[in-house]
Amino acid sequence: MHTYNKLCKYIAETYYLSSIGSILSWDSSVVMPKKSGVERAEQTSILTELIHNKLSSSELGDLIAAAKEEDLNQIEKTNLELIEKNYNHTKAISTELASEFSRATSLCELAWRQARHENNFPEFAKYFDKVLKLQREIAHIKAEKFGTSPYDALLDSYDPYRKSSTIDQVFSNLLQFLPQFIDEVIEHQKVHNNHIALTGSYSKDKQKQLGIICMEHFGFNFDAGRLDESMHPFCGGTPSDVRITTRYDEKDFISSLMGIVHETGHAIYQQNLPKEYITQPVGAAAGMTIHESQSLLIEKQLCKNRPFINWISKHIKDQFGNKQEFGADNLHKLINKVSRSFIRVDADEVTYPIHIIIRYNIEKSMIDGNLQINDIPQAWNDAMEKYLGIRPKNYSDGCLQDIHWPMGAIGYFPSYTLGAVMASQFYHTIKQSVDNLEDKIEQGNFKDLFNWLKDNVHCKGSIYKPDTLLENAIGGPIDIEIFKNYLKQKYLQ
Amino acid sequence: MHTYNKLCKYIAETYYLSSIGSILSWDSSVVMPKKSGVERAEQTSILTELIHNKLSSSELGDLIAAAKEEDLNQIEKTNLELIEKNYNHTKAISTELASEFSRATSLCELAWRQARHENNFPEFAKYFDKVLKLQREIAHIKAEKFGTSPYDALLDSYDPYRKSSTIDQVFSNLLQFLPQFIDEVIEHQKVHNNHIALTGSYSKDKQKQLGIICMEHFGFNFDAGRLDESMHPFCGGTPSDVRITTRYDEKDFISSLMGIVHETGHAIYQQNLPKEYITQPVGAAAGMTIHESQSLLIEKQLCKNRPFINWISKHIKDQFGNKQEFGADNLHKLINKVSRSFIRVDADEVTYPIHIIIRYNIEKSMIDGNLQINDIPQAWNDAMEKYLGIRPKNYSDGCLQDIHWPMGAIGYFPSYTLGAVMASQFYHTIKQSVDNLEDKIEQGNFKDLFNWLKDNVHCKGSIYKPDTLLENAIGGPIDIEIFKNYLKQKYLQ
Repeated sequence: MHTYNKLCKYIAETYYLSSIGSILSWDSSVVMPKKSGVERAEQTSILTELIHNKLSSSELGDLIAAAKEEDLNQIEKTNLELIEKNYNHTKAISTELASEFSRATSLCELAWRQARHENNFPEFAKYFDKVLKLQREIAHIKAEKFGTSPYDALLDSYDPYRKSSTIDQVFSNLLQFLPQFIDEVIEHQKVHNNHIALTGSYSKDKQKQLGIICMEHFGFNFDAGRLDESMHPFCGGTPSDVRITTRYDEKDFISSLMGIVHETGHAIYQQNLPKEYITQPVGAAAGMTIHESQSLLIEKQLCKNRPFINWISKHIKDQFGNKQEFGADNLHKLINKVSRSFIRVDADEVTYPIHIIIRYNIEKSMIDGNLQINDIPQAWNDAMEKYLGIRPKNYSDGCLQDIHWPMGAIGYFPSYTLGAVMASQFYHTIKQSVDNLEDKIEQGNFKDLFNWLKDNVHCKGSIYKPDTLLENAIGGPIDIEIFKNYLKQKYLQ
Repeated sequence: MHTYNKLCKYIAETYYLSSIGSILSWDSSVVMPKKSGVERAEQTSILTELIHNKLSSSELGDLIAAAKEEDLNQIEKTNLELIEKNYNHTKAISTELASEFSRATSLCELAWRQARHENNFPEFAKYFDKVLKLQREIAHIKAEKFGTSPYDALLDSYDPYRKSSTIDQVFSNLLQFLPQFIDEVIEHQKVHNNHIALTGSYSKDKQKQLGIICMEHFGFNFDAGRLDESMHPFCGGTPSDVRITTRYDEKDFISSLMGIVHETGHAIYQQNLPKEYITQPVGAAAGMTIHESQSLLIEKQLCKNRPFINWISKHIKDQFGNKQEFGADNLHKLINKVSRSFIRVDADEVTYPIHIIIRYNIEKSMIDGNLQINDIPQAWNDAMEKYLGIRPKNYSDGCLQDIHWPMGAIGYFPSYTLGAVMASQFYHTIKQSVDNLEDKIEQGNFKDLFNWLKDNVHCKGSIYKPDTLLENAIGGPIDIEIFKNYLKQKYLQ
């Protein structure tokens, strides 16, 4: 046990260094002055280099090898396995490459903000060229080392042990189902979704207050976390210091609210991770698909359905006045309006998977080398037209809308849709195992829901692989039919 | 030159690591949730350890030795000398001690916030005990190594090359002058300082707006800096990302304004440091005495005197209405009211040095080992009574008021008063060398003032030792008489 403990201490140090990176990253998105980006890129790149050196050192290799000889319990064994997995991932890439990639993504992210604002794809491409080149290099080095495809090598960093073959299966099933289903839903809503639109002006302060009411009821711990504002909603920080953001549109309080409840789903997962392993990989979240399943369960399964809407309707009236459009029935229709739209983060839950599938196909081709940067806009627009029937008129509403590629997060997108599928499965099981769940929700009592998530998902950290975690919690594997049935029942009945 | 360039690159890396620490420190004081302090202490301590290792490595020692053999220009020589000075300071202390000190001060700072709030000295003492023990250890190790007194060894980190013998001289001169002078001023003001007190309520937003107007007129670059709120005003961040704070009292807009202009003095010094050397010690500010001279010049010499008050009076009326009490004459009296008070940061410029001298004497005794922690409150209160004629009724208004000791910054306090003295000398010279300076100030034109400071102080970085910088700029050494004459002319005429 002696070496294992030394190993854990070593890993804890890298955890704290990474957690510094998380705070810097929050800072960059929320408070950093605009001319400080170049310095921030240097800071991040040096930090990345340090962490990379520590996580690929021969000292770590020796500790891992020696710890393997020791008598460990199951959790310790899993932790050791995860440490080694991460060690292999890190060691595959040279420190120079990791640091160069960090600097390139920092600068590309800055350029992207400007380029998106100015609808300037060629300017973005100048910076993205380097990011993609390095990302491909990383993917190919890892692929060779791990005996996987280059894309799967990247995927593994976001959704551990996931193979694109599973994603292909899920996505091709969805592609068979969704386009026609979207048609049907839109037709159905022409008759059944007559609602009063929002026309007022909703102050940022009151929108924030509404969000805080939800966060408090869901159990977010404000002594160990924050709510702020940023260009894109995100959940950042560390499990001891969880920082979520949203953005406010004074004409539409639902957008900020949905941002907040989504990120609160991530945040409470973070806050409930097992404290005793917090600095170890076994105490971290079980990858981004499980993470998105938690945020999407809260946003879509909980907050876009009647029991919650019945409850929040009263609070909306408290904030913005007792108006007709804030009635639960109207809100439910408003929130669940399905439409063909350009922006992923504003998309409804029916069309959302299409946005993801388009990105998934494009990013796979980028990594395989079959798609060049200058061909991205056309590939994007063609796919939008083919699967969603609309064609973006500019880059900003098209392939320039997301931060993921500039920040070097190729392999992340599938997590959203796999997460949405799993969310429907989790919620399906919770409804069966919690007495009167939806009555409780309607009364603003979310304890049983979050306790179930805490006990079955959050507290488990990375003790189990994502698919095993799902299986243990709901008694079965990923199942697209539950998701499809949920959509059919909700949108066509 | 080959090795010198390698050396600069090496030092630049430590600069970026330290700059990460600056951002974390800002974060701790401005946005960090209260339960994240323990994690932050770990982060800071690991970062400190890394920086300490890099700044005391034999690799650095070898680079320094080799660079000394190269043909360098004067600035490069000075930079090399400063690098070596810092190397010697760092190498004197083991990494374990540096890291332990960092962790102890982080935790003590947290405990202090609570203890000050609860007026609980014994609780504070529990944490400060460790800080002081380690601070003494550090001081004694350095003293032996550098052949100075332990206190001078600490002083050197804040005001390079300063000896306490100089401070003793200045402070004993002030102690002969001030107590009686304060009596006289208070008597004089009984007759000549009849003013209307502030009675209104002044919204935080408008106070902030007023502060921003000053910052903009002074030339603060908001694209490379921020203004926020914290328990104590400070100037943090990095020269590329200068972050100042203030605190708002809704009953007193002058307090937040003076906080802002003081910190803006620091901030503009940072923003004007020589860009080409920004990652090198020769490009850093010339120590905290020069730094305080810049903030105090702005706060006291500029903003507490008539020309500025004539200008700001109009802006105050714009924000808060055209009331009698916002007339320049009344404001001038209000801002320059001298009184015996407990809190240093709220003290007027006449009594302020007394607050500093008391702290200086106590911290010297703490380091020499002549004063134990439990005896601090009595030593403090006795000195306040002796020199200022008032005795604090509780710890929070007494020895618990300042963050410096809990954060391990023993040796910093004298900089405030040496800085105030130098500020009066700089301003005295500027008045002589800028045509119609005070007419320009009255018209809101601060360009000549800040250009003089930029050319003579800010742009010089650490090319000169603090006293040489002063001498070059004003043609003479530190001179207490100019300060005393300033006070006499202002407060007794």
